[in-house]
Amino acid sequence: MTPSPAAPADLVITGCTALRHTGTGSGSGSDERIEFAEDTSIVVRGGVIEAIGVDIELPDAVERIHARGQVAMPGLVNCHTHAPMVALRGIAEDLPTEEWFNDVVWPIESNLTAVDVELGAKLACAEMIRGGVTCFADHYFSMDTVAAVVEECGIRAHLGEAYFSSQGPQGREKSLEFALRHRGRAGGRITTALAPHAPYTVDDTALAATADLAREHGLPVHIHAAENRDQTEASLARHGRTPIEILARTGILTGDLDVLLAHGTGIVERDLPVLARTNGRTAVATAPRGYLRFAWPTTTPVRALRGIGVPVGLATDGAASNSSLDVWESMALTSLIQKSTEGDPRWLTSRQALHHATLQSARAVGFGGRIGSLAPGLRADIVLVDLTGPHTQPVHDLAATLVHSARSSDVRTTIVDGRILMRDRELLTLDVPEIVRELGERLPALVDRSHGRRIQEYGT
Amino acid sequence: MTPSPAAPADLVITGCTALRHTGTGSGSGSDERIEFAEDTSIVVRGGVIEAIGVDIELPDAVERIHARGQVAMPGLVNCHTHAPMVALRGIAEDLPTEEWFNDVVWPIESNLTAVDVELGAKLACAEMIRGGVTCFADHYFSMDTVAAVVEECGIRAHLGEAYFSSQGPQGREKSLEFALRHRGRAGGRITTALAPHAPYTVDDTALAATADLAREHGLPVHIHAAENRDQTEASLARHGRTPIEILARTGILTGDLDVLLAHGTGIVERDLPVLARTNGRTAVATAPRGYLRFAWPTTTPVRALRGIGVPVGLATDGAASNSSLDVWESMALTSLIQKSTEGDPRWLTSRQALHHATLQSARAVGFGGRIGSLAPGLRADIVLVDLTGPHTQPVHDLAATLVHSARSSDVRTTIVDGRILMRDRELLTLDVPEIVRELGERLPALVDRSHGRRIQEYGT
Repeated sequence: MTPSPAAPADLVITGCTALRHTGTGSGSGSDERIEFAEDTSIVVRGGVIEAIGVDIELPDAVERIHARGQVAMPGLVNCHTHAPMVALRGIAEDLPTEEWFNDVVWPIESNLTAVDVELGAKLACAEMIRGGVTCFADHYFSMDTVAAVVEECGIRAHLGEAYFSSQGPQGREKSLEFALRHRGRAGGRITTALAPHAPYTVDDTALAATADLAREHGLPVHIHAAENRDQTEASLARHGRTPIEILARTGILTGDLDVLLAHGTGIVERDLPVLARTNGRTAVATAPRGYLRFAWPTTTPVRALRGIGVPVGLATDGAASNSSLDVWESMALTSLIQKSTEGDPRWLTSRQALHHATLQSARAVGFGGRIGSLAPGLRADIVLVDLTGPHTQPVHDLAATLVHSARSSDVRTTIVDGRILMRDRELLTLDVPEIVRELGERLPALVDRSHGRRIQEYGT
Repeated sequence: MTPSPAAPADLVITGCTALRHTGTGSGSGSDERIEFAEDTSIVVRGGVIEAIGVDIELPDAVERIHARGQVAMPGLVNCHTHAPMVALRGIAEDLPTEEWFNDVVWPIESNLTAVDVELGAKLACAEMIRGGVTCFADHYFSMDTVAAVVEECGIRAHLGEAYFSSQGPQGREKSLEFALRHRGRAGGRITTALAPHAPYTVDDTALAATADLAREHGLPVHIHAAENRDQTEASLARHGRTPIEILARTGILTGDLDVLLAHGTGIVERDLPVLARTNGRTAVATAPRGYLRFAWPTTTPVRALRGIGVPVGLATDGAASNSSLDVWESMALTSLIQKSTEGDPRWLTSRQALHHATLQSARAVGFGGRIGSLAPGLRADIVLVDLTGPHTQPVHDLAATLVHSARSSDVRTTIVDGRILMRDRELLTLDVPEIVRELGERLPALVDRSHGRRIQEYGT
């Protein structure tokens, strides 16, 4: 039943300063115009922003938030993570990539149960909602469980069941089955993808079969690709092709599939024409903290990708490498590391960072045109940010304050699909102490490595 | 009057997990052993940690804090900042160093009044106390005003009145007069230094005179030095000597003065023997966020400095370049940027980062042996950190959780000299809304650049 216009709205927010996109909204990175409109009101009905503006008529509403002194902005999107890995936060520190995988993470993941994944996903969602993240792209195992957590806690997600070709065709089929069964679930809050792990763990035949399935079923693909320069060099040495070229040759990166590439710090000059030919249907997720931690020699080439119209979304990767799921930090670090890497302090301004965090991230996870901006008709994924703290005052440049001075802990209210998931820092759909208690009971069995197994071998 | 042992203690903290240094505590960087002792109690009397341990006898106390689930650690030290510059937070974004100085900051600073400095210092102290900073080293103008704010709000500080040689001998004399008058004030919470700006703004004669004064009066020197590689190269081109060599030649860096060098990202190989000869009386403050932002090609060479026994403290620089006074972020970034720069994921572990944040920082600001550790007889500068949030759970490695997952906003209680300055996130000695309101009234006059003046010219 469509509510009649005379019925009260679900939610009215008044008095906020709203982040508005004033460009074309194409999300291509070519138009980063952002304005801040003071004393804005937002009317939410049926999960959608019905109206937003300064002098709009305000209907009765079931719920009202007076947000003077707060900034309303689109919820952040975590464009690539492994949410349940919060269970492993801090367990594999100060290690090179190969030892991190082979000696700690992949042995531990051979113990994973659906209960571990459920508790990890709940804790991750709690962390993300508290940090103003309203949508995440997850790439992991036991994804039925993650989907159930998403359904229950109210967040939005783009989910894919990960597989290696070592699992045989069953891995791919399970990923397909998951993607088809969950697509559009939770009232449309869940979208799905096929999720092959990476070109170095999924062979060319399996990649080609994945591309065929994606095409046949109209599914996007979410995959780790050219994560670091070593992988690119190993791929060139072994196959004479870069990971990006392998993805093109196997039919993944052809321009008729929507593809989300995680990391891409190993993308090299010769990959750019390949990516350009995908006509903006490819996006890259950047999670710069992990690249520093692992001492990878390069970061995601954001400037080159912008030059060829590839959107770059912000991400955290899993907390076992990133220490948190703090997309706010990813936003600031992306700006800082891009300035440093390009040797150009004028590059990747705060407004550009906000554009990555909003329109480009929404597009990267396949929700472009539905989220990523505060505009009538878009889903009501909104966060309210309190800038009254001493660390965010005074405000000379609101974009700079948001990106470089504000912190995820300044998010006071998180709204997804018009539903308030956190109000005044209080989570309304998840019980953190209970989750932590239950997870604590699972940890000894989860982290046991005495069996000597691992789910896969890392060797680029 | 010395309180009798039978009198109640001022403060007793019970049930916390305490960060304890178990090495020699020399602060040289050669011994970074840190342990976490659960269920620890801390007794504070007369501003000093009287006792700390697991099974110690607990006296009556005027104030008790039950801190179960919280970590007690030494308060953070901001080893180099310009606190009042919070007033300029976000006003000079996305600019190279030279334009940042010449086009925005130095023109604006020609408008500075003591009232601006007072309000900026208050706001800065509020931000730092909320972020777990219990001591800061400030290098700025109108420092009488900053000292009064420190006295009033209860934080600890190492203060120096900045000067350029363009001010003539008066600048230096004013710095000396300030240092002598305020040394030991606020019950010992204030220490002072001579604060020449930098070798590129203070000529050799003035530096030599500074060294003489420092020696004569037993004062330390706090100076910007080799801030970036450009400065080192310009100095070599102009004088045939690096900034560090100039400081040695003018008598500043000789090993009988305590010297705090800010930044040092332009320290080069040939500087290392010069610094080594100062026998650990020189320290360097690193503030890595600004180096990224300005796209400087190098960062502070922490590993090389450790190799020659030079302590490296953590810092934020001013908020006009760093966007915040968040030393917690400096701690995490120092670890991440050092790993990345050295190409070594095993380097600058969380425990090393905590060692920089505590013993090395205390030593850098001349408070070594008085703060920087939780031990009987040391001043009671303590912060309590709440790790129950979803972003800091579960805990597999408490050092990693503190450095890489916790945030400054997780500090619940900040104590300086035994006095509680923030309790449960509430500031007890500063009124932020009132400071922000008053500062807001000052801003139009402060940021006016129509006069075309500047206090100095940047040209390395």
